[in-house]
Amino acid sequence: MMLINGECKEHIEVSDRGFQYGDGLFETIAVINGQAIFFDRHLVRLKAGCQRLYIPFPGEGLLRFEAQKLLQNSNLAVLKLIITRGSGGRGYRQPEVIQPTRIVSLHPYPNYPDSYKEQGINARFCATRLGLNPALAGIKHLNRLEQVLARAEWTDPDIQEGIMLDTDGHVIEGTMSNLFYVKNNRLFTPALVQSGVAGIIRSMILAMSAGQGQPVTEHKVTQEVLLLADEVFVCNSIVGVWPVKSIASTSFPVGLITKQIQTQLGRLT
Amino acid sequence: MMLINGECKEHIEVSDRGFQYGDGLFETIAVINGQAIFFDRHLVRLKAGCQRLYIPFPGEGLLRFEAQKLLQNSNLAVLKLIITRGSGGRGYRQPEVIQPTRIVSLHPYPNYPDSYKEQGINARFCATRLGLNPALAGIKHLNRLEQVLARAEWTDPDIQEGIMLDTDGHVIEGTMSNLFYVKNNRLFTPALVQSGVAGIIRSMILAMSAGQGQPVTEHKVTQEVLLLADEVFVCNSIVGVWPVKSIASTSFPVGLITKQIQTQLGRLT
Repeated sequence: MMLINGECKEHIEVSDRGFQYGDGLFETIAVINGQAIFFDRHLVRLKAGCQRLYIPFPGEGLLRFEAQKLLQNSNLAVLKLIITRGSGGRGYRQPEVIQPTRIVSLHPYPNYPDSYKEQGINARFCATRLGLNPALAGIKHLNRLEQVLARAEWTDPDIQEGIMLDTDGHVIEGTMSNLFYVKNNRLFTPALVQSGVAGIIRSMILAMSAGQGQPVTEHKVTQEVLLLADEVFVCNSIVGVWPVKSIASTSFPVGLITKQIQTQLGRLT
Repeated sequence: MMLINGECKEHIEVSDRGFQYGDGLFETIAVINGQAIFFDRHLVRLKAGCQRLYIPFPGEGLLRFEAQKLLQNSNLAVLKLIITRGSGGRGYRQPEVIQPTRIVSLHPYPNYPDSYKEQGINARFCATRLGLNPALAGIKHLNRLEQVLARAEWTDPDIQEGIMLDTDGHVIEGTMSNLFYVKNNRLFTPALVQSGVAGIIRSMILAMSAGQGQPVTEHKVTQEVLLLADEVFVCNSIVGVWPVKSIASTSFPVGLITKQIQTQLGRLT
């Protein structure tokens, strides 16, 4: 099910700048018991992304209304929002009047085994690096070739996520998730100043931890430091929090703080 | 006029990975006197790009055939080819069997004044930087947000091109062109190992110069070095070679070597 600018369609113009240049943004949102989880936060991020890219934001009310239309009779699903700069302009130059394309669509919820959440997943380091660019860092834009190439590096079904470094060799995130680690009972996560996507669950964890007087340290993380962690987990809006039980040949326990975070997020949903 | 996988259409599926992730490549080719200029070289680059992204190349014959269909009765135009990874896969993960989307389309030739070619253009330095990523450097992929943001920096019609630096501060290229400069009768151009698009006209100039025993030096170029150049020009497949008569407040003459390159390229078309 899909609405394009409010109409039931499944095709867009080839001239859409989302297709021509990846000139747009997206959000993927878990729908559980008919509720779009953390929908407010997704809308805030989408609006902020539009501001960063100078794309007029279509408005919360409209997106809520269209999402609600699709969510009728839907229990468990993935809701996806895409906003592009629409068609027009001359080459890379944007049109004088931007008429954004908005797409609201519903997709099947991926059926990952419960063991991923309970016993953790296996991860690997990807060879494909994330380029450094403060202008694009943090936002969930449509230029995702780096992630596509990183995800194409492995087919082994026993590996569930790939961890990506930036071109300076710092650990940034998973191909489809953000990453945290625990050392001496403190939480750390890579700073996303130069690359990476600032995920919604990541922002929830930062806010929760700060609220509890134990703020997460956002900093530059090396592979060596990560591999010496006491606990590691990845998170995104669809799967929540997955403990990482191994990265390459290094094993990690499913630790107390990871479980605590899972419980706290569970309560919030 | 447009052919999508051989059919007259102007819309693609929203699920196409070209739209979802910018997961694809493109070529823009000048059509002059009914001929697609340097078509062979464009096809070679497109094929190489497909190999870099693991997208099956649809084949030269097919692309030539479809382009030829569109070129009937066309004198002056821009021919655009787009190849994407098609639909399918799970998130960033590519499908097991990739069925690429190929789009061949014809567009009006932009009517730039002759003065750009003869007396040169004005350029500026863009604040938007090019991220560093060897995995994507050189190929003409669909992840073009950096160029869109750079081109959105100015609206002054007296400025025709913006020069982009990478995140390390090295000069790389124009938003829609490659860049060369002349110093002491020798030609230089930025190396495109970490970012940038290796343009067809750029490759022609490299080949011509090498063939004449005066190879172009590809190296790391700073703003300071560029501003001390004797001549500067930009080039792409649509406009050919434009001398740069100014960058910000620094002026350059339309020099002899630039004119020579224009003449030599003219002969090749």
